[in-house]
Amino acid sequence: HPAELSMQAGGRGPNGRPHPRTFLACATAESEPRSGERAVDFPVCVVLPAGGTGERTGLQTPKQFWSFLDRPLISYTIDAFERVSWIQNVVVVVAKENVDQMSHIVQRFAHRKVRVVTGGCTRHRSISNGVRALAEDRPEVVIVHDAVRPFVEEDFLYQIALAAKEHGAAGAIRPLVSTVIASTAEGFLDHSLERSKYRASETPQGFTFDVISQAYQRCSDWDLEFGTECLHLALRYCRVHAKLVPGPPTLWKVTYRWDLAAADSILKEPMLRSACVLSGDSVHAATLVSSLQKAVGALSMKLHVLTDLSAGIQAFLMKEWNYIHVSVDVCRLSDMEALVTRLEVEKRAPLCPLVLIWVHLNTHGDQPCSRAEGDTAAILDLASALKPNKLLLYSIQLHKSEEPELWEGSVSKLSELIGVLVKERSPALVGQLLRA
Amino acid sequence: HPAELSMQAGGRGPNGRPHPRTFLACATAESEPRSGERAVDFPVCVVLPAGGTGERTGLQTPKQFWSFLDRPLISYTIDAFERVSWIQNVVVVVAKENVDQMSHIVQRFAHRKVRVVTGGCTRHRSISNGVRALAEDRPEVVIVHDAVRPFVEEDFLYQIALAAKEHGAAGAIRPLVSTVIASTAEGFLDHSLERSKYRASETPQGFTFDVISQAYQRCSDWDLEFGTECLHLALRYCRVHAKLVPGPPTLWKVTYRWDLAAADSILKEPMLRSACVLSGDSVHAATLVSSLQKAVGALSMKLHVLTDLSAGIQAFLMKEWNYIHVSVDVCRLSDMEALVTRLEVEKRAPLCPLVLIWVHLNTHGDQPCSRAEGDTAAILDLASALKPNKLLLYSIQLHKSEEPELWEGSVSKLSELIGVLVKERSPALVGQLLRA
Repeated sequence: HPAELSMQAGGRGPNGRPHPRTFLACATAESEPRSGERAVDFPVCVVLPAGGTGERTGLQTPKQFWSFLDRPLISYTIDAFERVSWIQNVVVVVAKENVDQMSHIVQRFAHRKVRVVTGGCTRHRSISNGVRALAEDRPEVVIVHDAVRPFVEEDFLYQIALAAKEHGAAGAIRPLVSTVIASTAEGFLDHSLERSKYRASETPQGFTFDVISQAYQRCSDWDLEFGTECLHLALRYCRVHAKLVPGPPTLWKVTYRWDLAAADSILKEPMLRSACVLSGDSVHAATLVSSLQKAVGALSMKLHVLTDLSAGIQAFLMKEWNYIHVSVDVCRLSDMEALVTRLEVEKRAPLCPLVLIWVHLNTHGDQPCSRAEGDTAAILDLASALKPNKLLLYSIQLHKSEEPELWEGSVSKLSELIGVLVKERSPALVGQLLRA
Repeated sequence: HPAELSMQAGGRGPNGRPHPRTFLACATAESEPRSGERAVDFPVCVVLPAGGTGERTGLQTPKQFWSFLDRPLISYTIDAFERVSWIQNVVVVVAKENVDQMSHIVQRFAHRKVRVVTGGCTRHRSISNGVRALAEDRPEVVIVHDAVRPFVEEDFLYQIALAAKEHGAAGAIRPLVSTVIASTAEGFLDHSLERSKYRASETPQGFTFDVISQAYQRCSDWDLEFGTECLHLALRYCRVHAKLVPGPPTLWKVTYRWDLAAADSILKEPMLRSACVLSGDSVHAATLVSSLQKAVGALSMKLHVLTDLSAGIQAFLMKEWNYIHVSVDVCRLSDMEALVTRLEVEKRAPLCPLVLIWVHLNTHGDQPCSRAEGDTAAILDLASALKPNKLLLYSIQLHKSEEPELWEGSVSKLSELIGVLVKERSPALVGQLLRA
């Protein structure tokens, strides 16, 4: 698990905090060995035009600044490049009025490879500014990408960089989703293109520094004003036929307002896969956990169970998005505080919201609510205090019934609640005491 | 408000239930006067190919059968056509193995204009089957649409139907999102198309019955097997140049797995706009409601306040997605039951999930939880009983503090909780007692 190792060993930001990894990266690390070991042996920089105004979403905030789990989209995109060891710099080109906001984002999320540059009023002028900002670096290859495509993977960047070096230019392509047609001047169908012969041109695209620089030096004002396609400039002004590389569907671009919900679901997906359960060594807790193991299977969630906070917790601290702490009968606030301290010491919390679910199992008597009112208020207070640190604390109580059917119902309810808390990661529900 | 009138007066299904309107239709009715009054004066039928297997989503269930708020996507699409008075029949073409499922959907959601037909193994063969099924009806115009584009509006259908009648064929177009490029046989850029000269061809498309029938009779096996574009067949085999009509961005097609989250957010959007508050006539409730009015403004939600269940509730029953019932100090289960009975009498609940939030305002003493444990259990029981009827009952308690700051904090928390409950419409949280 190379990604996991690097998460613990290296990749720390200028302030000593571990670098914020994207969720997709972690997911990949878990599911299969990454071929990301392959590194290019020549300097590569990135130009990320982010001057868009978000017209198509119908929202005031440009979409690259839209927030997912309290972190702007562009920060995820930057991160996708920063975690690639062989990428040296990321030049982010933003509109003049967004320079301050962008610098703030760079600082807050500890981005280490970013240079913020002021953009022009069109896409080409912005990219051209970005390329000029790399004049002193003179990287072998420049990768051009869009700020609103956060899901680009290292392997694909590797393919693009290599093809760009070899052929002068390379670009991602995807099959066309719709038929493309040409219209007459009067608005009638002139002809339709045969779908299989054409492709949609996407990003990332790669160019040798010489090709992209010369293309922008030689191209016309008309190109800078009305063009959109860098591969076209390379062809027209440098006679370079770009290598076309089929890309994965996740290269998809956040375009419409509803794509924000789509991006949100992609970002959260890896967070639903597992949770770390701190069960303690009580027999009742063990029973609960083993029932819960089966119930969360329906959610395709895996539980990693630890009976002791000190044993092995470290390995999970940097890996897990979700923690379930089981208390039997007595719920000591100090237990939760100890866990929170460990998480805060690791300083991972400020970078992405962690879910902590405190499960209170009551084995005595029939009444489901055994806690004093003061406890409930104390949990609510603790939860409110943790929220700004992106530790989302919820609690769920359930009663250990001797009736198998009731017990099964409670466990299945508990699993359902865990599923929804982990999925929604809702700050509004923090501190609430739910019943399973 | 024509849509509103029709919701109350007509459009009942075969079993006497009001017809399930789409959420977008209601939203349109509220925001602007609809020009949907314009009706075409010739017979129009629809062919809806829904034989897809959902390969691109990577999910087992084809996307037209994916469920949103417990209702399959295709039912929303059918509904978009059924609510258009001048559309006579909707022929849904599904794969053989999905005929039973489709018939079940037609029955469950009381679709009135649908005929289910077995499809062929390609898009063109399916549409061709659908057109043949209309041979006896011989409508003037046939509209072809995709099951996975549920957000088509009456106005746009009107434009397509009229243009099809006049010109023989008409189709929706959208600007291209990506540059389209042609590849050489070796996988290099051959040339890129100038984006402004081309359009993406979308649906709905309209044809006179004669044009679409003849096109399918005359076209080749190759067309049926590998073609995808009906406008192309009309041009090639009937020499009809389709009129191209620019469509709205919502014609967007559910394509990838993450589009399911996007569609979900579009469907829920109109449900976030307002709630009906049943406040009773207590002074404390009035204070709460007036504070809440301001707080929910931040969510862009409007509250319609009723002090009495019997006065005017009828008008809201068919219009609102969200109800907030305020109890002061005493919370009588019978009050909530009365509201529930009214909603169930209207029989709207089974068609889409209604949110009922029971707010308990406690004005005595300092302890926030004044209710007996039995009450809590009773609410949980009631909520569980209502869930299968798609009445989602949640409760929130808050304490009337004399400290303005504390009170403001509670109201703002209440508003936050209402916002999240209304937005998520989560069945898992039903019956929970939350604290504001």
